[in-house]
Amino acid sequence: MATADLADVYRDYIDCLNRQDWDRLGRFVDEGVRHNARQFGLPGYRKMLEQDFEQIPDLRFEIDIIVVDAPHVAVRLWFEVTPIGAFLGLPVNGRTVSFSENAIYAYRGGKIREVWSVIDKAAIEAQLG
Amino acid sequence: MATADLADVYRDYIDCLNRQDWDRLGRFVDEGVRHNARQFGLPGYRKMLEQDFEQIPDLRFEIDIIVVDAPHVAVRLWFEVTPIGAFLGLPVNGRTVSFSENAIYAYRGGKIREVWSVIDKAAIEAQLG
Repeated sequence: MATADLADVYRDYIDCLNRQDWDRLGRFVDEGVRHNARQFGLPGYRKMLEQDFEQIPDLRFEIDIIVVDAPHVAVRLWFEVTPIGAFLGLPVNGRTVSFSENAIYAYRGGKIREVWSVIDKAAIEAQLG
Repeated sequence: MATADLADVYRDYIDCLNRQDWDRLGRFVDEGVRHNARQFGLPGYRKMLEQDFEQIPDLRFEIDIIVVDAPHVAVRLWFEVTPIGAFLGLPVNGRTVSFSENAIYAYRGGKIREVWSVIDKAAIEAQLG
């Protein structure tokens, strides 16, 4: 897949997440997807995302920077969200926090096959004081 | 700068870090470099790296994944290192830990102008038990 197309495919994936359109997730994510070296598979990946939205009702994915070189997409995502309870083990408890997530995706056959993601937990800790 | 050249320039930068060849750092890093939204400048950037090597004598940068789309370079770096004391506020104290860092760099004029970096602190916490 060409690099320009892959950027569009990724943006459509983020749109799918923000709409919580889980029935369409399989158009963007491979059945055998791996996430941070764990074999999630599509059902496990969907469950992770559904749980994210349960814990963070105002969750919204924003692409700050996107770097595309097929078969890879790398992004800096930006969040300004309000987790209702603990988040990453931190007592956020209804406060609004902002943080980035740097993620790299490997595509295969037009779908996400593997994800390596790091959330800026230290930034959240600093906001909780 | 072409994408292929930028990958080579980035690899030379990592080689410079691993050699701790600080007098050459200015070939790779812009005088006005910003790091995670802070205006470090080249002297501050060098100082940060020198302190990293003081706190982690066996520090070595390894490129696991590189995604290049000029003017951006995105990487997953991999570390297996032994911080002598606290690291990111965690009591590592001479244990060997492994973790990733996902970073995106913006180049200008062939040098790093801005860095957005996230270290996988949660992975280190998990290893400390």
